[in-house]
Amino acid sequence: MIKAGILGGGQLGRMLLQTAANYPVETYILESDPNCPAAKLCHQFVLGNINDYHDVLNFGRGLDVITIEIESVNIEALEQLEKEGICIIPSPAAIRTIRNKVSQKLFYSENHIPTSPFVITNKREELKHHPGFIPGVHKIGMGGYDGRGIQVIETDANISMGFDVPAVFEKKVNIKKEISIIVAVGTDGKMAVYPPVDMIFDPHLNLLSYQICPAGISKNISQKAEAIAIKVVKELKSAGLFAVELFISDNDQIFVNETAPRVHNSGHHTIEAAYCSQFDMMWRILLRYPLGNPQLILPAAIVNLVGETNASGLANYEGLEQVLAIENVFVHIYGKKETRPGRKMGHVTILAENETILLHLANKVRHTLFVRAK
Amino acid sequence: MIKAGILGGGQLGRMLLQTAANYPVETYILESDPNCPAAKLCHQFVLGNINDYHDVLNFGRGLDVITIEIESVNIEALEQLEKEGICIIPSPAAIRTIRNKVSQKLFYSENHIPTSPFVITNKREELKHHPGFIPGVHKIGMGGYDGRGIQVIETDANISMGFDVPAVFEKKVNIKKEISIIVAVGTDGKMAVYPPVDMIFDPHLNLLSYQICPAGISKNISQKAEAIAIKVVKELKSAGLFAVELFISDNDQIFVNETAPRVHNSGHHTIEAAYCSQFDMMWRILLRYPLGNPQLILPAAIVNLVGETNASGLANYEGLEQVLAIENVFVHIYGKKETRPGRKMGHVTILAENETILLHLANKVRHTLFVRAK
Repeated sequence: MIKAGILGGGQLGRMLLQTAANYPVETYILESDPNCPAAKLCHQFVLGNINDYHDVLNFGRGLDVITIEIESVNIEALEQLEKEGICIIPSPAAIRTIRNKVSQKLFYSENHIPTSPFVITNKREELKHHPGFIPGVHKIGMGGYDGRGIQVIETDANISMGFDVPAVFEKKVNIKKEISIIVAVGTDGKMAVYPPVDMIFDPHLNLLSYQICPAGISKNISQKAEAIAIKVVKELKSAGLFAVELFISDNDQIFVNETAPRVHNSGHHTIEAAYCSQFDMMWRILLRYPLGNPQLILPAAIVNLVGETNASGLANYEGLEQVLAIENVFVHIYGKKETRPGRKMGHVTILAENETILLHLANKVRHTLFVRAK
Repeated sequence: MIKAGILGGGQLGRMLLQTAANYPVETYILESDPNCPAAKLCHQFVLGNINDYHDVLNFGRGLDVITIEIESVNIEALEQLEKEGICIIPSPAAIRTIRNKVSQKLFYSENHIPTSPFVITNKREELKHHPGFIPGVHKIGMGGYDGRGIQVIETDANISMGFDVPAVFEKKVNIKKEISIIVAVGTDGKMAVYPPVDMIFDPHLNLLSYQICPAGISKNISQKAEAIAIKVVKELKSAGLFAVELFISDNDQIFVNETAPRVHNSGHHTIEAAYCSQFDMMWRILLRYPLGNPQLILPAAIVNLVGETNASGLANYEGLEQVLAIENVFVHIYGKKETRPGRKMGHVTILAENETILLHLANKVRHTLFVRAK
């Protein structure tokens, strides 16, 4: 039986493992938290630090294939494992390019992939030298995640809030819409492209508040966006599953915002709404099976379930019964013991015939289900 | 968090656990085989015999709710646990009625539920006293499973093949079709009924060879069959999920064949084809959430993947890649290390627009995918 390892044991690992049980595969998780969401669904849980060279190396030796559920991993160890003949999907080179926003942004410009105008800064004070980029967004190269490490610089007065480490300074684009396109690439290079997803953000937490698939964009924009997403993934030259997030500007220009080299929050609806879910697709890639069908069976919305502001402690899900009473609503609770403000605790998928109903139900779910502390 | 226990760790337990990870629930499995399909997907695996009074009692104490994935369990222990206030779904009384074919059959006749004519026998030689029931089928009361404990008595000469233990002797009915209807009952008594499934058997192994949903029956027959299935479940007076198998005779009479008080092979297509799968539905019942939507999203077929005749040993899945290359085909391998002739090793679900395509693809799958021994 193939031995497959995942670096990281969060909710993405958990959902990967739920699907892994359909296939003849032995699953291994490396994670430093023994109570992580994925700990009880794998054949072998290995306690260790995914950022530690030796932990990753020891974990990987003896496995057939390794993937990640977060970009922040020890790449040097993955590179060494790759040299030793272990299959790493996505490739360490692709992870290296993506996980640093500086190299990711340079990758887009070097490959003529449209992205918002930017400069690279190493120190906070350098922001002063680029008045043409204000208002802009300052993003740290390494370590930013879920809204952390991102600072909007509206005026010169905000420059002091910028980062004093290598970072990208992007000119603010007037965004009409933000969409995500997930592209799967098999080890044979074959591709499957999921329909675009509309991503609607919560301006306070900079966390997704809900998503609708298919996105409400014209066929023309959709095709252009798909072509760009495919180009991103082709230039990364790696098997795997990639979520390409794109901005659509007021004047219908399309820019790549960022890419994630893994299963992604914007693809969670595919569990119920697509023929082949992103998690199933990922296993087909890892196990070298033919890719599945990424098409939608029904339109879907996702509502992210995040910890309420000012609530920290043992998680309590309020309104679960009421939400499950709505027809064709599906709840995924990630099994995290403790909630914290803004922490991703679960998601809810809604299936319905059209966007109007989806939006109505998504709002209903948002105003019914809360993660509070006990 | 609710603590839920399952007696048995086979594929039904495995698929229940895949879905359990969507909900805030701590899962416990009792099973004597530490390498069983469900062992690595639960919070707590407890090694023990589900037919042993003390093992079941010790397992159950401290849990909030208990269910089964096989009828052959120690009912006395479940009855004791029920007295101690632990919620058992289905009720021990319902399991007691169903797990013995003699009491099950008497239950149908006492409740005026149509079932094929029968007599109860305690010894083989009693078969001689019922010439009017030959050709008939002799079924042992306790312990029959997957085609074991069933003997067709075509002529008087076959009587010596009958069973020398309490058994049911049924008059053979000319069957046109065998269907299954799964009925879910919440703890509040609310019901959800899945669309009927056509069950097509392999005459050699008496194992399902494939199933099609919805069944190819008239609306009239379908409604009558549903009414009978609902009556069966109502008279069992228990929450839970029940698969009612029915015969449709040549002259369109409907008889209940048997009932399973648990998730069932004939409902596996619901994972991909129904809004709410039978496994999701079972958790909604166990966790006292509202029932889900049992309706089909798309027509579906299931092909059972059983161990090839004359093959025993480490399982090897031949043709997996070819089958996964067919659009909208989904494979579920149960993770059993060893194959044996006729052993249920997995199933394949096919989604398609209509029955013609489903039958075509089901046959293709049957002639492509094999479980052989290494």
